[in-house]
Amino acid sequence: MTINLTPDLDLAERLFQMLREATASADGRGVTRDAYGPGEAKAFAIVTAEAERLGLHLQRDAACNLLMTLPSQDRSAKRIVLGSHLDSVANGGNFDGAAGVLAGLAILSGWRKAGFVPQVDVSVLAIRAEEAGSWFPTSFPGSRAALGRLPAEALDLPRQDSGKPLRAYIRDNGGDPEAVAAGRAMLGSENVDSYLELHIEQGPVLDTAGIPVGIVSGIPGARRLRAGRVIGQYNHSGATPRRYRADAALALAELAYRLDEVWCRLEAQGHVLVCTFCVLATTADAGFTKIPGEAVFQLDIRSVDTASTAAMYNAFYELAGEIAARRGVRIEPGEETTSLPSTMDGLMQQQLAQAARDAEVGFLSMPSGGGHDAVAFAQAGIPSAMLFVRNQNGSHNPDEAMRMEDFAAALDVMNRFALARARHHDDGQAV
Amino acid sequence: MTINLTPDLDLAERLFQMLREATASADGRGVTRDAYGPGEAKAFAIVTAEAERLGLHLQRDAACNLLMTLPSQDRSAKRIVLGSHLDSVANGGNFDGAAGVLAGLAILSGWRKAGFVPQVDVSVLAIRAEEAGSWFPTSFPGSRAALGRLPAEALDLPRQDSGKPLRAYIRDNGGDPEAVAAGRAMLGSENVDSYLELHIEQGPVLDTAGIPVGIVSGIPGARRLRAGRVIGQYNHSGATPRRYRADAALALAELAYRLDEVWCRLEAQGHVLVCTFCVLATTADAGFTKIPGEAVFQLDIRSVDTASTAAMYNAFYELAGEIAARRGVRIEPGEETTSLPSTMDGLMQQQLAQAARDAEVGFLSMPSGGGHDAVAFAQAGIPSAMLFVRNQNGSHNPDEAMRMEDFAAALDVMNRFALARARHHDDGQAV
Repeated sequence: MTINLTPDLDLAERLFQMLREATASADGRGVTRDAYGPGEAKAFAIVTAEAERLGLHLQRDAACNLLMTLPSQDRSAKRIVLGSHLDSVANGGNFDGAAGVLAGLAILSGWRKAGFVPQVDVSVLAIRAEEAGSWFPTSFPGSRAALGRLPAEALDLPRQDSGKPLRAYIRDNGGDPEAVAAGRAMLGSENVDSYLELHIEQGPVLDTAGIPVGIVSGIPGARRLRAGRVIGQYNHSGATPRRYRADAALALAELAYRLDEVWCRLEAQGHVLVCTFCVLATTADAGFTKIPGEAVFQLDIRSVDTASTAAMYNAFYELAGEIAARRGVRIEPGEETTSLPSTMDGLMQQQLAQAARDAEVGFLSMPSGGGHDAVAFAQAGIPSAMLFVRNQNGSHNPDEAMRMEDFAAALDVMNRFALARARHHDDGQAV
Repeated sequence: MTINLTPDLDLAERLFQMLREATASADGRGVTRDAYGPGEAKAFAIVTAEAERLGLHLQRDAACNLLMTLPSQDRSAKRIVLGSHLDSVANGGNFDGAAGVLAGLAILSGWRKAGFVPQVDVSVLAIRAEEAGSWFPTSFPGSRAALGRLPAEALDLPRQDSGKPLRAYIRDNGGDPEAVAAGRAMLGSENVDSYLELHIEQGPVLDTAGIPVGIVSGIPGARRLRAGRVIGQYNHSGATPRRYRADAALALAELAYRLDEVWCRLEAQGHVLVCTFCVLATTADAGFTKIPGEAVFQLDIRSVDTASTAAMYNAFYELAGEIAARRGVRIEPGEETTSLPSTMDGLMQQQLAQAARDAEVGFLSMPSGGGHDAVAFAQAGIPSAMLFVRNQNGSHNPDEAMRMEDFAAALDVMNRFALARARHHDDGQAV
């Protein structure tokens, strides 16, 4: 059986344009699709109308996620889900999230046009509220709710701009927060074969390497110190010679600089990780003629490999001890918060790589930088993978960019993957 | 002629107690003598009453400084001035400033009691508004006004807590701001032989060394950057690998750490200086999941030797250029403000050392850390010197402490110095 079905790129381009116009920020440059708010609602309305036009089967779950399915020859088989989120940060870019949903619709539209009926259901999932840094202070409430895995207490979390709880937002959008709290799931390992999320890279790796597509090897776990402090002693900056100082800022500067050196060395040894002092600062008490007696920091270390984050934290604690003793300060790391890394499914990565070779699309195997809804699916025991599209100017800002030719290349890979994955089922092969 | 006149330590102890009670801070621990405000006024009232009781000759100048003179055998000869300031920082300690005024009164009281009439006038000067960091944003307005050297525009400077200008404060205290603006001087090189200021050290050097008295070699000049900035690029802390970062905070941390190493090396080579990043901080835009795109700093480098500050600034600019290029950031030092160092008079230092040896009081020759009114006198061409008294817990805080036995030791040195300095005049020796 030779199949050569073409994704409907025109549909995707048209929807990108509609989304941009409907959710434009006040300044006209970026977009704002606030989670469970008017911006996200407009995006869902556009996508819903298009899915209805395509004759897809629509399901809304208790948390207002939208599943758009092309029915198959075997409705009882586990489905393939192509998904991503539709919300954006305030004044963000048009592609972060939306690209994954429009990619799925473009593929199903292509199949629809050709009259192709896949061997198993293929669904596009439009997910709510992924941008945790901007709206609700928790990770992936939309996809976790779709999987019946959102803890009930998360429904009381307030949206950061309004203070109104998630529960009220879900109800206002016609959802059922009690069903979410009860763990009623639309999706799970019992009915999902695999989850594939196409997303812009958000970083400069593909663009700099000149490669259009990334196959994600894993999504890093993070070990974070959000409330680190260095306590020294305020003293007169003129009257206190070097040997009598307990300079909190300088101790922190040394810690940051030397931990950066450790990162350098680990990277040279093949570790892949990132290490960021997101905050590194003297406090409001600092000022002229005073030696800083206090400094605060936030530290974010991430890697797909927990051994790499552990190596960094070992170095952190060793350096902190040594510097604190030598400089006469106290370094208080504060509470550490941890998220585990998620490995992407090995077979799916192989299938994506094969699809890319078949499509003659260059690709890079790479870890993700940020977290994504794919984490929620992987943690629910569903084989999950991600396809990155080269993009420019980062993300979460109005200058975020993506070339349509790169999106088309990724669509080609995704299309071949979905066809092959569905066919494997038909062939009776293990997936 | 053998003279053995004893300073009136009881008087000083009594006045310290009265000052502490009259100017206690709200919390009852520290003192607050706000410049040209009620706190400083109470201190001046106490000192004035004591000087009147001692029968000293009182003069108030246009800026409300108070000169208390023991008349001599030769009223036309240049006088010896023993002085310091009476204001304090808000919630400061009882000794910073006041010790120098009470020391002078204790000496004149001792001489008065013995019926001793010195060969030249010896005056105690109580100075206004020395604590520039706390009240008026300029250095030594009180002593500069006494010397007729305060620029007229300084009278428009607002007190930092009230916003009311210095001019109004002087008028409210019965002074004559127009005369100050016109440069009318109570003191100058034409009528002052020498200026000696006793002051608590404000630093830990004497206390740690176990030595009661310091003879100040010079008062450092400062080269300061008050508005330094490092401009990098905000990026996603997860999605941005090391080589694509322009981390402003890390660039600043490296600059601070490596400049500290330079300070170490210069100190080992014999340079005496201090180098402080008083502020070293990411800005309000920083936060979790972001690589810092901006950081700010304030840098304070001081030395008696301009070659030492120059060596540090050379290193600063060299490091800044190298780090900025390597880390892809821009380092903007901002405007540099400079104050020149003041060398203390060589002969006076020798005379103080001789007095200390005669009194069998251990002393250290040392640079001052902070600035003092002695700078204004030295800049007016008047031979000037300072005597430091060992103190504990720094200064500018309620825990500032000074032992009476150390104060007595310093008084002994000061007494011998003043007697010898006055006698030299009588002997017709060059002073």
